[in-house]
Amino acid sequence: MYNYPSKLLENAVNELSKLPGIGKKTALRLVLHLLKQDAMNSDALGESIIKLRREITYCNTCHNISDTETCLICSSPHRDQSIICVVEDVRDVMAIENTNQYKGVFHILGGIISPMDGIGPGDLNIESLVSKVAKGNVKEIIMAISATMEGDTTNFYIYKRLKEFNITITTIARGIAVGDDLEYTDEVTLGRSILNRTPYENSLVK
Amino acid sequence: MYNYPSKLLENAVNELSKLPGIGKKTALRLVLHLLKQDAMNSDALGESIIKLRREITYCNTCHNISDTETCLICSSPHRDQSIICVVEDVRDVMAIENTNQYKGVFHILGGIISPMDGIGPGDLNIESLVSKVAKGNVKEIIMAISATMEGDTTNFYIYKRLKEFNITITTIARGIAVGDDLEYTDEVTLGRSILNRTPYENSLVK
Repeated sequence: MYNYPSKLLENAVNELSKLPGIGKKTALRLVLHLLKQDAMNSDALGESIIKLRREITYCNTCHNISDTETCLICSSPHRDQSIICVVEDVRDVMAIENTNQYKGVFHILGGIISPMDGIGPGDLNIESLVSKVAKGNVKEIIMAISATMEGDTTNFYIYKRLKEFNITITTIARGIAVGDDLEYTDEVTLGRSILNRTPYENSLVK
Repeated sequence: MYNYPSKLLENAVNELSKLPGIGKKTALRLVLHLLKQDAMNSDALGESIIKLRREITYCNTCHNISDTETCLICSSPHRDQSIICVVEDVRDVMAIENTNQYKGVFHILGGIISPMDGIGPGDLNIESLVSKVAKGNVKEIIMAISATMEGDTTNFYIYKRLKEFNITITTIARGIAVGDDLEYTDEVTLGRSILNRTPYENSLVK
């Protein structure tokens, strides 16, 4: 469909449009933006991408992206190593850290079980979680995985693997989001929020 | 707001989010996508961006992006060098080329006059257009610039610079898009489409 006037241009557009959510038109717009900027900007962008993938390292304990062998959270003396929050990827860690409500450590699965995308339990960091729990220093596992079908499957698989150990397994609370209208909440969420109602005192900000 | 667990990650996210229309969240999503891919993909992307900006060359005649000193359109014996279509950038060339309706050559301005963005006539390839016309081999200039306020200003400026020469200056037809409903067309477009009505025979596809 497109006739690019230059191979260099075509190549950059093709590479950019391999990224999720970026089509050929958007890629061309981005490339033309870069051409109007100083060459230093393109160099910085290109090099940061190459360097990231080539030099990235992961924490040897929680599998989070980290510049050090053990990440800052896992090596912090202020974090409770006996509570592990299980999440999908680094974005969830950042979101939970931003709340300032969590003082335990994390375990990053690196994805969720999704047979449609060919991702099974073996592709995720589940074995290392099980062996961490088997060592006996863990009191509680908090499952903080998206409330989707794939997320529920993953939750259930991990629950089955861990239930033989003498630990508490919890999931983050599902319910009506703070600020949301009752009237517009879907039935499943509303139903669960009634079944899983909490003492009023707990809802008061301390 | 964000606490990135790694400098490499933060750096790549910051560089990507400098692109227009890409915020920090999207940049992080793209970066995590790249981390899941083979390192070769990131290398190809990064290198294509650096190479593009460092090695790009422009046609010495029409200022279009080109791998050769004179671009394929300008050097083609099948194109009519006496008709020049004036456009904003390479995207417009590609769009017009895709129609297969144009057999003349192009002249790329490299932008449009936009005082708000600090872009004046001196920042665009206008002088080289005037000197091309001054050489006397041009019969017609077709203004194919977006029908925005900035586009109209650019059209008018170029018209003023070229009207002393004995050439035809035209603009691409403004009117109701093929397939559009009359009822939902804005008044300015509808008004102009009545004033600039064309003989019925011209609308028949030949």
